[in-house]
Amino acid sequence: MINKLVEKIKKLNAPIVVGLDPMLSYVPEHIQKAAYEQFGETLEGAGEAIWQFNKAIVDATCDLIPAVKPQIAMYEQFGIEGLKAFKKTVDYCKSKDIIVIGDIKRGDIGSTSTAYAAGHVGRVQVGSKSYAPFDEDFVTVNPYLGTDGVKPFIDVCREENKGIFVLVKTSNKSSGEFQDRLIDGKPLYEIVGEQVAKWGEEHMGESYSYVGAVVGATYPEMGKILRRIMPKTYILVPGYGAQGGKASDLKPYFNEDGLGAIVNSSRGIIAAYRQEKYAEFGEKNFAEASRQAVIDMIDDITSNVF
Amino acid sequence: MINKLVEKIKKLNAPIVVGLDPMLSYVPEHIQKAAYEQFGETLEGAGEAIWQFNKAIVDATCDLIPAVKPQIAMYEQFGIEGLKAFKKTVDYCKSKDIIVIGDIKRGDIGSTSTAYAAGHVGRVQVGSKSYAPFDEDFVTVNPYLGTDGVKPFIDVCREENKGIFVLVKTSNKSSGEFQDRLIDGKPLYEIVGEQVAKWGEEHMGESYSYVGAVVGATYPEMGKILRRIMPKTYILVPGYGAQGGKASDLKPYFNEDGLGAIVNSSRGIIAAYRQEKYAEFGEKNFAEASRQAVIDMIDDITSNVF
Repeated sequence: MINKLVEKIKKLNAPIVVGLDPMLSYVPEHIQKAAYEQFGETLEGAGEAIWQFNKAIVDATCDLIPAVKPQIAMYEQFGIEGLKAFKKTVDYCKSKDIIVIGDIKRGDIGSTSTAYAAGHVGRVQVGSKSYAPFDEDFVTVNPYLGTDGVKPFIDVCREENKGIFVLVKTSNKSSGEFQDRLIDGKPLYEIVGEQVAKWGEEHMGESYSYVGAVVGATYPEMGKILRRIMPKTYILVPGYGAQGGKASDLKPYFNEDGLGAIVNSSRGIIAAYRQEKYAEFGEKNFAEASRQAVIDMIDDITSNVF
Repeated sequence: MINKLVEKIKKLNAPIVVGLDPMLSYVPEHIQKAAYEQFGETLEGAGEAIWQFNKAIVDATCDLIPAVKPQIAMYEQFGIEGLKAFKKTVDYCKSKDIIVIGDIKRGDIGSTSTAYAAGHVGRVQVGSKSYAPFDEDFVTVNPYLGTDGVKPFIDVCREENKGIFVLVKTSNKSSGEFQDRLIDGKPLYEIVGEQVAKWGEEHMGESYSYVGAVVGATYPEMGKILRRIMPKTYILVPGYGAQGGKASDLKPYFNEDGLGAIVNSSRGIIAAYRQEKYAEFGEKNFAEASRQAVIDMIDDITSNVF
């Protein structure tokens, strides 16, 4: 799957991923209204609203983007009905040949990580039948529990031709609280990065590993070091745009081949219609605003990075 | 909710929690068969099987135990249908006045942790209505992202009178890979423990904080240190029994008041019927075997610890 991701990025000349993280407050009035008319102001109604919102954005951008990254928390907050919208979104994106990175940040002791891996990127056995319940292409994984929390994901990915991105340095403000603490003169994120590189070398696609890393756009100095430590690792870069990361900061995350990183934008794309810059589209044409924001993002990155 | 947990532990003289982590392989043949007859060998059938399994165990043990800890991964692996079984289990346990600790190990950047917190221990707004989607009493939280990944959970818990347990030192073998690394001469888990104690002091119930910690039974020396660092923190202790932790190792996790820790057992209770010790019950009477295993666990802990 990492090979397919690299191919799509090259073909579209777009090292970007759209974060499908639909807060209800992003969903235009008319979509919410239609959903509530059908299902009431219920969790089912909320699920329908975010699903219709996603669908319109995917329809308007699918020819431009290699991948989407739905943040499962934004669906899980609406319980079962929200998770149904998550699953519909995953399936719909895959039907459009968009690669799906499930931003699930799971990670637990071995047998439990095995269950998460089976449910999200693998298969479960029920009697004589087997099923792929959520069936994302990639998922994000939290490394706090060490190798035996991550390895089950890698094992499943090898079998199923899928991949993971391990949290190394996150984009948020307080990420340094534990991740930056020095261990033998090296910050924890470097130690995690070294481990990711090691896992990665043992699990290679053609030119990149299917064990990737998450490194926030908000810390370009650290991105530079981590790029060097993890040369064969694809880096998923959150924090561009709304979180403050600029295209000019992104260069260190890429390798000299122009590959090696994929930059996420969530709010900046899916809620583009609420920005002054795209206000002319109007709320009704939110999906076209998102399309324009994707075009602008690709242009911003390719002209500032390469 | 921490006050209620402490009261229940005192009243039942049982500092234990039953981990409802149903692998399908633990579910007796006759329950699986009945579920598949009704729903086929489908994800729905799997969900029904684990729900019926849970229900029988809860019915057989509810007068003895203060709390259960369903591990959400074991449900999530079966997709939406598995999560419906999770939700049914949460609701059923609460209807029996058992405290529910959702073992979800979530943690993300601020706005995303807010969504997880709303979905699991809080409420979400849909138009003019509000809902509590999963509605556990406590959840476990991963601290790798630092304060702004944890704070949203604490904020929601303060409003909703609920609580969290933050991963400090996990019970698995490779937990030391990152958690034990020395920072200024102190292991990372101690630094996380100090932070948990600080969050805890600011968010107190009567005698204990509603910001608890997870510390594995498999590391009693570390438990001793962490007990001292976090005097007002309730410690959730996984790893007893099947994972190798012994009752005689548990003393350091408790305070002198005989409180401060709650010990989890999953496999050891829910799959008790498969142990030689409880084989006499037979597969049909698996729930009675679980009841006996609960009685034995309480006895083992109270006689070895106090």
